[in-house]
Amino acid sequence: MSNKTAISPCRHEDFPEWYQQLVRVAEMAENSEVRGCMVIKPWGYALWEQMQSVLDGMFKATGHRNAYFPLFIPLSHLQKEAEHVEGFAKECAVVTHHRLEMQDGKLVPAGKLTEPLVVRPTSETIIGSVYAKWVKSYRDLPILLNQWANVVRWEMRPRLFLRTAEFLWQEGHTAHETENEAIAETEKMLRVYETFMQDYLAVPVICGEKTASERFPGAVRTYCLEAMVQDRKAIQAGTSHFLGQNFAKASGIQFQSRNSEIEYAWTTSWGVSTRMVGMLLMVHGDDDGAILPPRIAASQVVIIPFIPKEEQRTMILEKAEEVAAQLRAASYAGGPIRVEIDARDVNGSTKNWDWIKRGAPLRLEIGPRDLEAGTVALARRDRGPKEKESLSLDALAQRVPEILAEIQQSLFDRALAFQKEHTREINTKEEFYAFFTPKNSNKPEIHGGFALTHWNGCPELEAKIKEDLKVTIRCIPFEGASEPGICPFSGEPSAQRVVFGKSY
Amino acid sequence: MSNKTAISPCRHEDFPEWYQQLVRVAEMAENSEVRGCMVIKPWGYALWEQMQSVLDGMFKATGHRNAYFPLFIPLSHLQKEAEHVEGFAKECAVVTHHRLEMQDGKLVPAGKLTEPLVVRPTSETIIGSVYAKWVKSYRDLPILLNQWANVVRWEMRPRLFLRTAEFLWQEGHTAHETENEAIAETEKMLRVYETFMQDYLAVPVICGEKTASERFPGAVRTYCLEAMVQDRKAIQAGTSHFLGQNFAKASGIQFQSRNSEIEYAWTTSWGVSTRMVGMLLMVHGDDDGAILPPRIAASQVVIIPFIPKEEQRTMILEKAEEVAAQLRAASYAGGPIRVEIDARDVNGSTKNWDWIKRGAPLRLEIGPRDLEAGTVALARRDRGPKEKESLSLDALAQRVPEILAEIQQSLFDRALAFQKEHTREINTKEEFYAFFTPKNSNKPEIHGGFALTHWNGCPELEAKIKEDLKVTIRCIPFEGASEPGICPFSGEPSAQRVVFGKSY
Repeated sequence: MSNKTAISPCRHEDFPEWYQQLVRVAEMAENSEVRGCMVIKPWGYALWEQMQSVLDGMFKATGHRNAYFPLFIPLSHLQKEAEHVEGFAKECAVVTHHRLEMQDGKLVPAGKLTEPLVVRPTSETIIGSVYAKWVKSYRDLPILLNQWANVVRWEMRPRLFLRTAEFLWQEGHTAHETENEAIAETEKMLRVYETFMQDYLAVPVICGEKTASERFPGAVRTYCLEAMVQDRKAIQAGTSHFLGQNFAKASGIQFQSRNSEIEYAWTTSWGVSTRMVGMLLMVHGDDDGAILPPRIAASQVVIIPFIPKEEQRTMILEKAEEVAAQLRAASYAGGPIRVEIDARDVNGSTKNWDWIKRGAPLRLEIGPRDLEAGTVALARRDRGPKEKESLSLDALAQRVPEILAEIQQSLFDRALAFQKEHTREINTKEEFYAFFTPKNSNKPEIHGGFALTHWNGCPELEAKIKEDLKVTIRCIPFEGASEPGICPFSGEPSAQRVVFGKSY
Repeated sequence: MSNKTAISPCRHEDFPEWYQQLVRVAEMAENSEVRGCMVIKPWGYALWEQMQSVLDGMFKATGHRNAYFPLFIPLSHLQKEAEHVEGFAKECAVVTHHRLEMQDGKLVPAGKLTEPLVVRPTSETIIGSVYAKWVKSYRDLPILLNQWANVVRWEMRPRLFLRTAEFLWQEGHTAHETENEAIAETEKMLRVYETFMQDYLAVPVICGEKTASERFPGAVRTYCLEAMVQDRKAIQAGTSHFLGQNFAKASGIQFQSRNSEIEYAWTTSWGVSTRMVGMLLMVHGDDDGAILPPRIAASQVVIIPFIPKEEQRTMILEKAEEVAAQLRAASYAGGPIRVEIDARDVNGSTKNWDWIKRGAPLRLEIGPRDLEAGTVALARRDRGPKEKESLSLDALAQRVPEILAEIQQSLFDRALAFQKEHTREINTKEEFYAFFTPKNSNKPEIHGGFALTHWNGCPELEAKIKEDLKVTIRCIPFEGASEPGICPFSGEPSAQRVVFGKSY
């Protein structure tokens, strides 16, 4: 069965189930016994650590520092910003007791708190109350902090990485003297995310602004990055919020201005999460497993020793170590190449398939024949599992960085081509509804994509489309759609096209 | 007032209050509005990040990988290990609801959970239940994982860093095929911690085993590291637990052995936390603020531009950048020197004192006269605030790494001398009680220390001493106390001396 793939069903048969299987065979994560909470497995966590490391460097390079704020938010804090509480109260974990007692052989909650505590769903309110103490004068501004943390939002329909009750993320929280400064910060961080996603994750994203109905609760403006995954749905990859003075007023972040007046600060917040892992898998994965872009893979090159006879073991493992050392001394994308040797005591073919499923960008097989010939067999994860290329050991240090760069580029190009192929300017209501309706309603095939369509700005119309088709405005894009036109749903004028799509 | 110090009261006047003030002036952390939860400020968090970075490297070098497990533990899980639940049920945050509702204009908990969830106080039980699924055969062992996470233990008398309701830590959790392998792992990680504390934190520690009454709830053996701080009390700096098969039995971690029999795995756990920050401050700090050992300081060298006249600003800042670049190109302890320029628009003296209080190991002042002379004024944090040394710019790249190494060594030597000075072999009950009793009971002065005393192994005697003096057995030390003797409290034989002390 030459067409057999590592994952069944394949993407085109059942995308959601393919994704579940992908996360499993790639050893990224699994569901825990706590509803909606996941266990992030070592290979998945290593990917998250790479993301953290790159982003943290980018945050620090743009003048931010890390800090840490409490996990718990007093109920009264959350209540301060009206829209905010409306948006988050529906889905949070509430701590009501601080002790357990044994009663009739059963543990029961005891020590009731006078004020319940909410496990942070996001930290604007708790951080705002701290900034209110720190800020007295314009000299104390700006505050440019970031926090790496876990947050909890109760989820009724959890999905690994994409929608989990607990997830890991970073949340930047900044406070500024002027409105313009805060807006500039919001835009700057959006572009930091864009650079990260395109250059490291090899995921093309559309930057834009959310409509009022899709805004972060309490924000004045929400900027976002939208990616298209392989079932043509959208994933919101990250957001950057201009909060105006809303949270400053709610928390009392006031300062004496340069004119000696008391003013409220202007704040922003911005975040990306472990959801990016899910996005990455859905954008690049194939029917054999994950495909990790080299710049973000924890192991960029995996050396797989093939040891048919026990007496060859030492010799082959020594050569593997030698090759690893040679590659680690070489440089790719500004750092040493990240190399792992799979020295497990299982056969070479099993190892090979494990790394295909895990998505290592490059596999180097070393067996007895290679040893004789002074070569390795090189296999790229962006090509078929059986496509191999023999490479002279002498050429490795030069060729491997080049090939990694090629893989990085090819993944981005492929994802961009896919996104473009399934993004369409749509000018009539009929075409729009047809675009987002599967042809076979019994067994819906992958359909739709991004529709670039004019919209009159009316929230009711937006709600109607959502109700009819489960299609929402992903964003009002910043680039490439600035010409005015006519909204096909209302016949009214529209300032620019917006991006419609189904989303995760 | 030449004797005025940055912190008042000073250490000898009121050690607990000095510590509070130290944490404040060094900008390490502050209390939040949530009882027992702290806000870790950027300079304190940067210190924690350095600790994380070094430890993470050490864990990975010893074959461990990181993963992430859920924040919440179902009540039924916690209940599985009897001693464990006994030890932790008293002090945990309990989530009972997953929603909030507005009732009469007030938010109230809603959506009651069928089974309450405990916010992890430690993760043996939740991780054990996952390992039970992962482990089937001896081939699946060992599992060597670590988790960086927040944990919550309700605290009635919180103290910043030392005892907080929420704290940050790492918890290693390993599962092994044999008892010996698990014991070896427990010991190995204890020694990893020892190396870290002595070589990086410059804190001398005593490694040993806890008595039964001080053991981790559910452990067979608890190994620990005990440090002495400047009020001569002990701080438990870290622990490494050999859990035997207790948690494996509670969680069902079973495997098919090499002999095809079904056996329970042997597990360990080990952890250190943000408590280390408090320990570090209490060991090295002085009456002017924190003193950070160079190998762990986020900024090892701080350049302080003195700019008396505005027209000199550009010239002086350029020179500061030049010096910074020169130092970053130099190497200390295997990496580039971590340099920060304090370019804030405040006067040089304020900056200077800020960095004294924050504990930067080395300050380099650059002013107009230095510029002319081609020198900088260098001040070491382990010397008096006014002791300065003029150093030629040409000599910087060579001298700074040498001086940093000297500071690192001098801090360790000082702490070790202090520990030795206040550690005493005590052979009579009278001397023991006198050692741990302040002379002036109205205004107790700093007294006591570590008593190396024989003990007959009796828990009741241990409890009596604790009741009388608040003195506990910190550990049964592994080194330097192996000769047998007579327990002065009972007159009975004792296998070796143990370390008694008052503790945080």
